[in-house]
Amino acid sequence: MSVFPKQMDTWQETVAVVQQYRDNSLDIDPPLSGIPLNLPSNVSEIPRKFLSAIELDITETPPEHLLEKLASGELSSVAVTQAFLRRAALAQRLTNCLTELLPRRALARAKELDDHLSQHGKPIGPLHGLPVSIKEQITLADHPLNYSYVSWVDNVPRHSAYLIDLLETAGAVIHARTTQPQLIMHLECASNLYGTTVNPFNCSLTSGGSSGGEGALLALKGSALGVGTDIGGSVRSPAANCGVWALRPTTGRVPMLGIDEDYIGQEAIRAVAGPMSTSFEGLRSFMRAVLRGRKPELKEPGLIPLGWRDDEAKSHFWSEEKGWRLKIGVMWDDGVVKPHPPVQRALRELVEALKEIDGVEIRDWEPYHHDQAWSIAASLYFPDGGADEERELRASGEPWLPLSRWIVKDNPFCKELGMHDLWDWTAKREQYRIKYASRWLETATGDDERGVPTGMVDVLLCPAGPGAAPPLENSKYWGYLAQWNVLDYPAAVFPVTTVDKGADKKDQSYRPRNEQDAFNHELYEPERYTDAPVGLQLVGRIYEDEKVLAALDFISSRIQLPLRKAT
Amino acid sequence: MSVFPKQMDTWQETVAVVQQYRDNSLDIDPPLSGIPLNLPSNVSEIPRKFLSAIELDITETPPEHLLEKLASGELSSVAVTQAFLRRAALAQRLTNCLTELLPRRALARAKELDDHLSQHGKPIGPLHGLPVSIKEQITLADHPLNYSYVSWVDNVPRHSAYLIDLLETAGAVIHARTTQPQLIMHLECASNLYGTTVNPFNCSLTSGGSSGGEGALLALKGSALGVGTDIGGSVRSPAANCGVWALRPTTGRVPMLGIDEDYIGQEAIRAVAGPMSTSFEGLRSFMRAVLRGRKPELKEPGLIPLGWRDDEAKSHFWSEEKGWRLKIGVMWDDGVVKPHPPVQRALRELVEALKEIDGVEIRDWEPYHHDQAWSIAASLYFPDGGADEERELRASGEPWLPLSRWIVKDNPFCKELGMHDLWDWTAKREQYRIKYASRWLETATGDDERGVPTGMVDVLLCPAGPGAAPPLENSKYWGYLAQWNVLDYPAAVFPVTTVDKGADKKDQSYRPRNEQDAFNHELYEPERYTDAPVGLQLVGRIYEDEKVLAALDFISSRIQLPLRKAT
Repeated sequence: MSVFPKQMDTWQETVAVVQQYRDNSLDIDPPLSGIPLNLPSNVSEIPRKFLSAIELDITETPPEHLLEKLASGELSSVAVTQAFLRRAALAQRLTNCLTELLPRRALARAKELDDHLSQHGKPIGPLHGLPVSIKEQITLADHPLNYSYVSWVDNVPRHSAYLIDLLETAGAVIHARTTQPQLIMHLECASNLYGTTVNPFNCSLTSGGSSGGEGALLALKGSALGVGTDIGGSVRSPAANCGVWALRPTTGRVPMLGIDEDYIGQEAIRAVAGPMSTSFEGLRSFMRAVLRGRKPELKEPGLIPLGWRDDEAKSHFWSEEKGWRLKIGVMWDDGVVKPHPPVQRALRELVEALKEIDGVEIRDWEPYHHDQAWSIAASLYFPDGGADEERELRASGEPWLPLSRWIVKDNPFCKELGMHDLWDWTAKREQYRIKYASRWLETATGDDERGVPTGMVDVLLCPAGPGAAPPLENSKYWGYLAQWNVLDYPAAVFPVTTVDKGADKKDQSYRPRNEQDAFNHELYEPERYTDAPVGLQLVGRIYEDEKVLAALDFISSRIQLPLRKAT
Repeated sequence: MSVFPKQMDTWQETVAVVQQYRDNSLDIDPPLSGIPLNLPSNVSEIPRKFLSAIELDITETPPEHLLEKLASGELSSVAVTQAFLRRAALAQRLTNCLTELLPRRALARAKELDDHLSQHGKPIGPLHGLPVSIKEQITLADHPLNYSYVSWVDNVPRHSAYLIDLLETAGAVIHARTTQPQLIMHLECASNLYGTTVNPFNCSLTSGGSSGGEGALLALKGSALGVGTDIGGSVRSPAANCGVWALRPTTGRVPMLGIDEDYIGQEAIRAVAGPMSTSFEGLRSFMRAVLRGRKPELKEPGLIPLGWRDDEAKSHFWSEEKGWRLKIGVMWDDGVVKPHPPVQRALRELVEALKEIDGVEIRDWEPYHHDQAWSIAASLYFPDGGADEERELRASGEPWLPLSRWIVKDNPFCKELGMHDLWDWTAKREQYRIKYASRWLETATGDDERGVPTGMVDVLLCPAGPGAAPPLENSKYWGYLAQWNVLDYPAAVFPVTTVDKGADKKDQSYRPRNEQDAFNHELYEPERYTDAPVGLQLVGRIYEDEKVLAALDFISSRIQLPLRKAT
């Protein structure tokens, strides 16, 4: 067992100890060897060279198929876990995405599960034997929990987050812990403790954040299902940047007990835990495993007792059988920052494909003052003006990183609020939610016998950001993501295409609308984004998480995602 | 049409104008005459002398039977409305419970509904034709809305609360608006604008509050269904004090859009609207009419999309058919203030009756630091230390009433909080909720196949206050009610017995535990409480509103409530 990191005399020495602890955790058997020191910009194909055929086969199987094979005993959890451990260790070398690998803990649990299956002849739960990676922030008992702060490296909680308990009793094998940025509030992934996690498809781009370690790890298939958190895009940005799938659930659906306990009581805008995966079914498996029939609200009274309503999603929301159509509102642009050409093309191509399939109706969606939503989010993220964060950084002497400085110190909305200011911003948030709901109501085409509007748009399709993964230290527009946190709408991100130098020319004649738009426009040169994946976002009304996934299931079962390249 | 009240030179003149406006509204046809100036202490039988046999018959019919007769056309809404209008006007003379009677508005609507029924042969909705009274605070379009502040008498909103729209489209006829105390934060009902509403059974006692006008009006059967609001007991205190039924729903169930709009953004503890009625079915009719199939969450995104789950209450919570039992935890005493002898007896007698019926299991429930819950409530009610209230009172010069002073100025927890203090108290609230949930989990007797605890207590039975209706200006212990607001548990109050001088002797040997307990003990002398009703409370876990009503339905269909007197 490794000795836990401890504070040293200087923050730099502490960092060295923490990184040594991480590196020690990578010591797996058989060891990885021969990894070149000079890596190409795109490392996504490297795992093929260092893993066995069996390991490749396992790790490239989608999680839903792994679960079938694990449940039937066709694959042992030990074999699956071992394969993902090795691939995760490799992903760490390639993108710097881990804070800790958990080989002993994971293999011991995998063994127990294999024994359970052979003894009882049936799996322990719906995630039986599947390796699951978690963002560092998600409390794991008896492992250090530092929230990316050098000053926290001594913290070793004794209890896991309730979500971990639920995942483990469902059969998950927690095998890796992943990186997050300083303050856990960048749409990138750099900290003084662990350095920078890069995009596996192009190392000059970010993997996204704050669950950026998950994004890189999943893209490299060092995990098939991961858990991140999202208060302004933190599971969706890395999913979009890394070409994987993610869901930001509505607040109060997924248990948060034991996660971010220092923030309990700060309720105006809240982080939520959500799944990230290499497949659509990974997202739904997570939500079903945690919510269906589990009644987590009995232990965590802040949760909404909705269970998981697959049936309702099917019968009440839209139905092929009844001839109802999936009505998709398309938001091409949020009216604040125009998306880069690859994102515009991704939307165009997907909409064209959607128009070709039965059962879909496409309508345009006009954004409603998305700049106002950002002012609300940005005011409520740090209502003490960043005083807590300042104190934590000062405690160790570690420096502010550029994107921390940007979101706290250069953010005109980040200031210490009085209690009445906090009320005012919370009221603005609530009024904005009411306005947006009425926008949605305006899409109704009729009423039922009780006066309930019918024929409304079911889901919104929109960008997941103003471009593909930005070059490092340039993720400065949160609007396409934080928008849905302000509204508390569930939002899924999924892979659609890849930046194409030929197709995605810069519009040299474009005249930016404002400073943010100009910054984003300047950023774009097709060559900078070589090989970058492009994701899009599907958004539902508050609590309609099931509907978002049902709609995404409908779409992805009819249209191959990512889209095939026109060749 | 009456001319709306306006601010006058002095607050006393303004009060006179407002009371004249109220009195003008009472001008109904045929007029009430011959009401004695000197009223007895108990006015509950007086309506019998001043109303016709038909009016008495209508107004003494429980709302569920009225709804049947209105739906079939056996009774016209005009006839029913006319009868309740006259009885409500009488109730005003007897207890001072109205801020405004609405004869023209109500009769016009009743006529429309009668026409609808004769044209279409079916009712417009589940509340077709039923008069419904509302607390003044619940916004009614084009009628003055003063929140009991002299300084607000000029305020005439243009839109009704969304709840009013839902009630009216369900067929309700809004016929009367009822009193509330200054600040709407006493468990009594006195304001400078309207004076004091008294208890119809004993005029030296309070009708309760803050929905105290509803309590008195319903007790006198000037309404069969009313709507109040509750942040610390405000529908339950008047129901208990006046011998009627009430439900405080969980937050986020009943629409609040357009009610208390000045408080939007203050979310740590929130007022909820809830029904009060002369019968159990009145409560359930209200909840079904507002929630079942209505989807109010489409317009008000802060609502939880649970609809109204009658089926779930039956099938998931307990079931006679399956041999499951209704498991009632009995909290005899909250450990802070011992209830008076009539409340102790009410609990004893009801528990004895419950033990006699099949399908009920009784367990004792140990309270968990209810004094701590009060410190949380009392800190979060006025997080600005009452500055808003001070300003509103100062604007007109009206004086602070004693119970306003008590809850704001003499309340050691009422102080201006900084933002971090607000977070801390909100965190304490959340931690308390988690603790209480774990208390409830400890009552489990097993687990199901997914690890969900089974056999837990379904509902708690407990006092609705530390005594029957207190003598005026003595309602100073909120613990039995505010406890459930802190936890956000649904709680119903129902009538059980009446104070009995012979049976309810004072325990002269009792040694109080603390100052509040001593105050309450001192207050009790059986003679002071002559004829006072005694209610009890049934409480469920957060969001289990359906279960609370299903349990109360089970109980009240097997045990006549109030209990028959042993003779």
